[in-house]
Amino acid sequence: MNLKAEFINPFLEATVSVVKTMAALEPVPGTPSIKKESSSHGDISGIVGITGEAEGSLSITFHKDCILHITSQMLGEEKKEINNEVKDAVGELTNMISGDSRRRLQLLGHTFQGAIPSVVSGPEHEIKHITNGPVLSIPFATKAGGFTVEVCFK
Amino acid sequence: MNLKAEFINPFLEATVSVVKTMAALEPVPGTPSIKKESSSHGDISGIVGITGEAEGSLSITFHKDCILHITSQMLGEEKKEINNEVKDAVGELTNMISGDSRRRLQLLGHTFQGAIPSVVSGPEHEIKHITNGPVLSIPFATKAGGFTVEVCFK
Repeated sequence: MNLKAEFINPFLEATVSVVKTMAALEPVPGTPSIKKESSSHGDISGIVGITGEAEGSLSITFHKDCILHITSQMLGEEKKEINNEVKDAVGELTNMISGDSRRRLQLLGHTFQGAIPSVVSGPEHEIKHITNGPVLSIPFATKAGGFTVEVCFK
Repeated sequence: MNLKAEFINPFLEATVSVVKTMAALEPVPGTPSIKKESSSHGDISGIVGITGEAEGSLSITFHKDCILHITSQMLGEEKKEINNEVKDAVGELTNMISGDSRRRLQLLGHTFQGAIPSVVSGPEHEIKHITNGPVLSIPFATKAGGFTVEVCFK
């Protein structure tokens, strides 16, 4: 599938909308880039598979400070470590961003299904999407640090 | 979806078949278990989303020694570090196990689609499937150490 601008905005807008709604925090998107090969590094990530018009994968990767801030905002109490509650929050954010992106794509006439998200934690882990197609990478800044959304299709 | 025996064998048999074919190595399955909550720990994992009759996720998690042995067998040259070739090999194994499992489920009348796999690397990372349903965990032993296949559905 061609990763043209039409496909970038639904993921970008869904991410801003979900984080804003869930954490009362406005993430500022940086310049999206499309790479032939890409891997993101962070401390905790949500990953969810996509099928339908094309097969793909969506990941959202946070550094520790950023997700602790977002989760503290979401849960209304300060989180100091990546525990089970934080992992579940990342799963919930991933599910909501996957769902909201697909809803926005549906409005443009593109139908996709989403799988169950998995949450990966571990200091400085790396995620690599296994595809010959392009990988769309969107960096976001928050006052507590950044996170990265990556989307790829076959 | 109910994770009954009918659904365990396709994943178990596909894993044995793919590893045997690709790496000339016979992995010995241990006793599958079904847990309400499960997380697997390892050094490199392949993760792939599943949609269709039910939404799910499949992961396969290796310790370093085990995947280096399997990859050395697959590529016909000794691998000593988890590099890009090893990551791609994990992606390929994940894709093939996902495909072969779904082919076997299809023969039983169950239709599923597979997403694009992602490969996560990082020492002792943890994978958590975000679902309220059961998680099927199948341990495998090889002469170079073990790996774990986990499958969950919503």
